[in-house]
Order: sequence, then C-alpha cells, then structure tokens
Amino acid sequence: MTVEYISLQPSGDKMPLIGFGCWKIDPNDGAETIYNAIKVGYRLIDSASNYKNEKAIGRGINMAIDEGIVKREDLFVTTKLWSTYHKKEHVRPALEKQLEELGLDYVDMFLVHFPLPLKHVPIEERYPPGWYQNNDEPVITLDRAPMHECWGAMEKLVEAGLTRNIGVSNFNVQLLMDMLTYANIKPSLLQVELHPYLQQEHLVNWVQSQGIAVTAYSSFGPTSFVSTGSKRAKSVEPLFENPTVKDIAAKYNRAPSQVALRWSLERNVAVVPKSLNVDRMKMNLEALNWKMDEEDVQAINQLDMGLRFNDPMVNAQKLPLFY
Amino acid sequence: MTVEYISLQPSGDKMPLIGFGCWKIDPNDGAETIYNAIKVGYRLIDSASNYKNEKAIGRGINMAIDEGIVKREDLFVTTKLWSTYHKKEHVRPALEKQLEELGLDYVDMFLVHFPLPLKHVPIEERYPPGWYQNNDEPVITLDRAPMHECWGAMEKLVEAGLTRNIGVSNFNVQLLMDMLTYANIKPSLLQVELHPYLQQEHLVNWVQSQGIAVTAYSSFGPTSFVSTGSKRAKSVEPLFENPTVKDIAAKYNRAPSQVALRWSLERNVAVVPKSLNVDRMKMNLEALNWKMDEEDVQAINQLDMGLRFNDPMVNAQKLPLFY
Repeated sequence: MTVEYISLQPSGDKMPLIGFGCWKIDPNDGAETIYNAIKVGYRLIDSASNYKNEKAIGRGINMAIDEGIVKREDLFVTTKLWSTYHKKEHVRPALEKQLEELGLDYVDMFLVHFPLPLKHVPIEERYPPGWYQNNDEPVITLDRAPMHECWGAMEKLVEAGLTRNIGVSNFNVQLLMDMLTYANIKPSLLQVELHPYLQQEHLVNWVQSQGIAVTAYSSFGPTSFVSTGSKRAKSVEPLFENPTVKDIAAKYNRAPSQVALRWSLERNVAVVPKSLNVDRMKMNLEALNWKMDEEDVQAINQLDMGLRFNDPMVNAQKLPLFY
Repeated sequence: MTVEYISLQPSGDKMPLIGFGCWKIDPNDGAETIYNAIKVGYRLIDSASNYKNEKAIGRGINMAIDEGIVKREDLFVTTKLWSTYHKKEHVRPALEKQLEELGLDYVDMFLVHFPLPLKHVPIEERYPPGWYQNNDEPVITLDRAPMHECWGAMEKLVEAGLTRNIGVSNFNVQLLMDMLTYANIKPSLLQVELHPYLQQEHLVNWVQSQGIAVTAYSSFGPTSFVSTGSKRAKSVEPLFENPTVKDIAAKYNRAPSQVALRWSLERNVAVVPKSLNVDRMKMNLEALNWKMDEEDVQAINQLDMGLRFNDPMVNAQKLPLFY
C-alpha cells in the first residue's frame, strides 16, 4: 500500500493523508488501540488534551516504538492546545504537560483546538479541565486572551523544537484572514468538521489557495455523533445508508465508509478516522488504494446539507462559534 | 411620532432605532434626498466611504442644519472605514478625509466596514478606491493589517473626538470574540445583513448579550439587490410578495415594507432603509408607530432561509468572507 502525503508549509514536512483519530477512545482501550493502529500501518496519530486520553495514547505510541515497529521519526503526531490555555504564558506549559502525558519529546503538529479563549484553569487544579471554569456549573467563561498573542506563543514552540508545525482547528475565514496579517509562521493546517453532509467547499478552496493544508474530522458525518446523544445526528439518514453512497460503494466493491474517506482524499483533504476494530482500521486505511471517478465525486457533492454536528450552539455549551 | 432609541455602550449615546441608509444613492440625488429625509423626521444617516456619495450626503445634512431644521447634535451620523485603510497609520487620515467630504467635525459612529484588510490605495492616488488595487484588474489583494492594530487606531479616534462611538460591520462571532479579548473600547455596534430570509438568530442573540447593539442592513431582503444584478435576488420570491408578509400587512393595514422593518424593531435591531420617494420615506419611518403581535413575529421567524445577498463569494470578488 502506498502511503500518500501532503507537503506542509513552511516546514516542508510530509503529513500522511490518512491518520488515526483519538476522539472518544476510552483511556482503558487507548494504548492497545494505538499500538494496533500503528501495527496495521497508520503513521499519523491525531490526539488532543481535551480527548482526555493522552496518557494511554502515548503508551500505545511508545509500545510500538519500543517494539521496533516504527521509529519516532516515522510517525506524525498531532495534538491540540485546549481553550483554557490561550493566554501567551499558558501555551508552553500546556504543551509541556501534553508531551509529558504522551511520553514524547516533541509533536509534529500542534493545533489551536477552538477559536475560543476560555478562562484559564491551572493545570495543578484540574487536568484536563474541559469546557467549564467550574465543573459543577456548566457556564462558559471567556478570558482576555487575544489570538495574536496566543499565536505568537505557538510560534515560539516551533523555535523551541517542541512542535515541528503549528495550525488551527475550527477556525473560519474571517479569523484566519486576520491571522495571516500577523503570523510570522503561518498556520500549516486547518482541521475542521467535513463530510458529505457538511462540505464547506468555499472554506476548503480558499484555505488551500493560501497554502494551508486541510484535515477533515468526523468524515463519517452523523455516525460519529450518535453516541454523543446528538439529536441532529439521530434525526438524519446515516451516511452509510445514503443511496448515493451505497451505490458508489457497490460500483467499486468498497464499503460506504471507504467511499466517505475517498471522497475527502479526492479533494486533497486529509482524514483521521477512528476504529477500535483492527479489520475496520485496515479497511479505512485502504481508502488510499483506489480512485473514485469524477462523476462519483460530483454525485457526492450533491449531498451537501450544511449540516454541522460538532456545533457548540446546538450542544451543551450554547456558544454560536460558527455563526 | 415617538422616536425610539438604543442606548450604546460604553458612551451612553442614544442611537435612533430607525435611520436613513445611503447605499446606492446617486451623488446627483444625494443632497436633496438627505435633506428630505431629515425634513420628514430621520435623525440617523447611515453613510460609508465606499457608497461613493459622501460629499452629496454631507451637503444634504448641512442644508438641513443651515435651514435650522435640526441642530448637529440632534443628528446621529454613522459612516464606515473602507477596507483599504485598515493599517493603523491609515485609519485617522481616512476618517479625516470622510469628515472633509461630509463637511462635519465629527461623526457619531464609525464602523469597520468589512473584516477585510485590502491592500492600501493612497487617498491622493484614487478616492474612494473600491475593492481592487488596480481598477483595470479585478483582483483582491490583501495587506498585513491586523484587526487588533486597526481597532487600536479606531479607539484613538474616539479619544481625539473625531467619532463618538466605534463599531464593526459584517463581522462574525469568531472575530468579534477575539476583538473582545483586546478591545479597550469594545465595539458599540454590529451592522450586518438581516431580513426575514437571513435572520442570523444566534449571531444577533449572542452579540446583544455582549452589550453590543445590532443594526440590520438590507431589511427588505432580495428587493435591495435586484438592481445590483444579483441572480440570487432575482431567483427568490420578493419579500413584499411573500404570503406571510402580505397577510400580516393586511391584518394591520400596513405595507409589507413596514412589516419587514417592524419585525426587526421587535428584536431590538435597528434598521436603515433607503428611499428616494418622500412618501415612502415617511412610510418607512412609521414602522416605529405600532406593535406586531408575537404570533406574527413568530410567523415571520419561519421564513428564514439563511439566504445572504451581500456575499462577496457569490458576487464579483469571489471572497468567502462569510464561510
């Protein structure tokens, strides 16, 4: 199997087009899952402080390295700055804490997880802290942590060798355009929710035109969110049961999940699917091994509904980040 | 007729809930139109450098003042910083030029027109410069003009007494949330496209919850854009022919245009309609004089289609500012 890559700016690093996502992995399963993922061929691990499982993810990575399955430099490890650490003095301690949990000296990509300056919670008080200042009171509290100062601190992490690349997640064009006015190291990557029901064509085209790579999260659309209790996810036809997706899957003798991933790769958008099951891990990875005809890409393009599932306005936070 | 106001933060100034919009007024009609508008009772004039008619607007304002119809302090004059003047050293010269054109010593509100740092065009080279660096070549060129520096220069205009209040237009939540982290004077006002076909409920609620007033532009929806050649505007049912709007108009013996304006006022969202016709000017102003039942507000709330007409992605600029 050929591993395909995107070349990142400005480092020139090669990022695998398909990686393994760590959201919703139970810490008890984490080490084994990541070990298996690396064993079957994944070379990109997509982690985050707020996934609350980085110790386990790190154990899995180090098991694979210790056994000689991969070298550290063969892996591309992504993790994300949580929203309570946006003040410039909190950025480096946050990554240092994550590196400690992961058992790594550096990561390959560090992303600002959300454009959301949540009030700081000291690491020694609670880690990882989640969305709220006080866990007993689900109220969003904002801090005066400007993105241009946060980004300046992110740039220093590259200079310090703690991460090789920096980028952002869940940002829109207005905020990205402003970032490009002051960034000394421009974001290498934007990671956003992207699937046939939320295609964000104009965002993706513009971001790519700026030399910024794009990674899709939740490539399977509603399927990823049913277990979170999302009413929106439950109310819509599962992507894998959509007739267009099923017909295309049948045409190529592929699974609907592979069709969803391949559609993203055809747009040069990286993906980070997750599975606990080794056979499905392999199946997802095999989205790299074939091409989809342009007419099938076009057919999936017709499925766009602008339907966002990871929307903090609809979810518990009641925060209109995408409006 | 009772004039209603919104109290602005932090100045405490009272901004009329209904004003007179200057977009698309031919400079040849400008002075007379504004003079008439003030004569029939408008006290807020909504201008902008990029409307390319500020000299005429200023003549109309000064005719009304000279004739003793109003005093300067009875008027609320809004104007907007064009996108080619976002660099901190260009903000004050831009407003000074506008004050010269308007024939005024100060404005009441100065808004950043778009969150878009267009490359600077010197005033002496071309004024007003429009969207493009070179008029013969319709290509968008961006400048490294960070919003936090632009806003710092806007704040200095308040200290200098050149404007009483500052705010923004066409900004979304992500960029506004970032502004709130660094603003010493927080934006008093957000002006955005808002009408029954583009209601932006979550944006409006959040912005108002932050103590920021909201003004709707293009309250008549597609009607305002048919003359600009917008295919999107031509393809949709005119708001004034929508059965819900017509039924509500009939119920209160009002015009559909008054229903559109009143619906906005019921959300405490200011409006800035335009008309060249004195009778329609008066009719629009009379949207202040009545109440709409909650059930009718709710009925109009059902008309939302998320349909944006002033979209630089769909229009000539091909710029995904709202994505």
